[in-house]
Amino acid sequence: MSGFVSFIGSGPGDPELLTLKAVDRLQKADAVLFDDLSSGPILSHAREDADLVGVGKRAGRPSPKQDHVSRLLVEYAQTGQRIVRLKSGDGGLFGRLEEELVALRTAGIAYEIIPGIPSAIAAAAAAGIPLTRRLTARRVQFVTGHDVSGKLPEDLNLPALADPGATTVVFMGKRTFPLLARALHAHGLPLDTPALMAESVSTPEQSLHRSTVGALAERLDSEIGTAPALILYGPLAESDDD
Amino acid sequence: MSGFVSFIGSGPGDPELLTLKAVDRLQKADAVLFDDLSSGPILSHAREDADLVGVGKRAGRPSPKQDHVSRLLVEYAQTGQRIVRLKSGDGGLFGRLEEELVALRTAGIAYEIIPGIPSAIAAAAAAGIPLTRRLTARRVQFVTGHDVSGKLPEDLNLPALADPGATTVVFMGKRTFPLLARALHAHGLPLDTPALMAESVSTPEQSLHRSTVGALAERLDSEIGTAPALILYGPLAESDDD
Repeated sequence: MSGFVSFIGSGPGDPELLTLKAVDRLQKADAVLFDDLSSGPILSHAREDADLVGVGKRAGRPSPKQDHVSRLLVEYAQTGQRIVRLKSGDGGLFGRLEEELVALRTAGIAYEIIPGIPSAIAAAAAAGIPLTRRLTARRVQFVTGHDVSGKLPEDLNLPALADPGATTVVFMGKRTFPLLARALHAHGLPLDTPALMAESVSTPEQSLHRSTVGALAERLDSEIGTAPALILYGPLAESDDD
Repeated sequence: MSGFVSFIGSGPGDPELLTLKAVDRLQKADAVLFDDLSSGPILSHAREDADLVGVGKRAGRPSPKQDHVSRLLVEYAQTGQRIVRLKSGDGGLFGRLEEELVALRTAGIAYEIIPGIPSAIAAAAAAGIPLTRRLTARRVQFVTGHDVSGKLPEDLNLPALADPGATTVVFMGKRTFPLLARALHAHGLPLDTPALMAESVSTPEQSLHRSTVGALAERLDSEIGTAPALILYGPLAESDDD
């Protein structure tokens, strides 16, 4: 006897940004394993008698080890239930999806992957800016701003990230942005490149802070905060006129 | 009197990948202006008496000029109605969103932007692969494979696109991929880099073709087709074991 796992990208936080397919699977689930960022009102779609299991990852807090989460997922599925594994944003984008897929494959458990709205996509929509522009911004890139130990990764492709013609979104990079900004500048990115910091996108706590790469780096040198943040920079980061 | 426009990303095609918010706005709309790729069953959420207006863009076919679409959108909104502007995938990602935003701002018409599931995100989910991996694939990039005239853009950042440690998704790049692959190879990308071509993602016509950069370029040198296609390459393009 073995269950079935639906990996669901819950989107950035607004329960109205769930897909119809995600709601359907939540309504049918016997158990929901969720990250902290995909909890709250989103879980109200689950059945009243469903097991709701927090396997929380939250910015700035210690979280369960990934192999523990994978093991828990396999154990739940092996009871023969319908399991939902809820991940914030889209699971395939900095969501550690692969480790859990491999664990299920190894255990011979069937699954499906339901994509979600990435937080970077929702941040741009909230700010009223497009991520691409014909002729001048034909490339968009998403990168993580921290490695396993929380530091700026050493092997970043800095020339690619310093391209003034691209739109770049840095995930989980608030603490390391001052260091990244210096490295980008050393590789030719002007410090007055428009930048936008988006926190708690699509939730009641959403904040959008328009700045430049240089000014944002200075501000983050002294500011401490644990809200999940994205930093977007490039020519389009200022294209809204509000 | 002036209306209100909801820009809606319809997702890749599967009507179940619409968000709850998108369905709500479709149900309330007096008029829906849609691209060909976001039509079909998705439009069934609109009211029976709503105006459904195709402003079609379809791969390989001539389409209405963008300024004509923008003008039509403004004209509909100026009648004081609730308008939905439906764009396939996410409007901010290669969706020509900006031109229409500017037209509405100029005309003083209020709007909102509702993000959608990008086709690239849905393609990876359909193929069972993540877009990122800790340590080895920390950067994802999306790029368009054609310029205004349908040719490979001349100013692509080829070193960034030839980075073997990134996951790259090429939008609208089927015709130009043989040329792009040669340029990437000249910048150091191995021809045996895993590649995946995804067509008509999340629709009944979906096809996923696993290959390598070199072999896919050879195949596309001779193949003609007009289905909307994404090409994904990088180390993760083969990580599913099915």
